[in-house]
Amino acid sequence: MRATVLVRPKDGILDPQGEAVGGSLRKLGFDVSQVRVGRVIDVEFTADGPDDARAQLERMCSDLLANPLIESVDVTLGED
Amino acid sequence: MRATVLVRPKDGILDPQGEAVGGSLRKLGFDVSQVRVGRVIDVEFTADGPDDARAQLERMCSDLLANPLIESVDVTLGED
Repeated sequence: MRATVLVRPKDGILDPQGEAVGGSLRKLGFDVSQVRVGRVIDVEFTADGPDDARAQLERMCSDLLANPLIESVDVTLGED
Repeated sequence: MRATVLVRPKDGILDPQGEAVGGSLRKLGFDVSQVRVGRVIDVEFTADGPDDARAQLERMCSDLLANPLIESVDVTLGED
C-alpha cells in the first residue's frame, strides 16, 4: 500500500521557515502574501485493505509523523 | 491566487530523513518498506489568471523552492 501524508503547521502557529521563504520570494520580485511550509511523507507499507491502511496511518501520524498540537494532517491513500 | 507545491527527493536520490522516519516506524512495529520525505509549500500570491500563476510558480520553483537536480515538483493551483 502506498500513501501520501501532508503535515502542515496549523493556522495561527508560527512558521519561521514559511516566513523566510516568503521574504525571499518577495525579494525576488514575487507579490506573495503568505507562505507556509510543511512536510510531504510518502509511505509504502503492508496493510489488509484500505480500512487497515487508514487505521495504521492514523497511528503512524499520532506516534511519529505529526504533532497534533501544532500540525494538521491530510492523508491520501494510493497516490504517488 | 493560492497554490500548493510538493517538492520531493527524486527516485535514486539519497533521502536520510526518509530513511530515519522509516527506521523509526519499523521500530514502532509498522511493516514499512519505504519512506520518502519532502516539503509541502502553500503559497498565496497575486497573479493574472491561471496561466500567469503557473508561469510564476515555475519561476519560484527554479529560483528558490526546489533543486531540479535532485528534487521533483508537483504544483496544484487553487487548493488548500
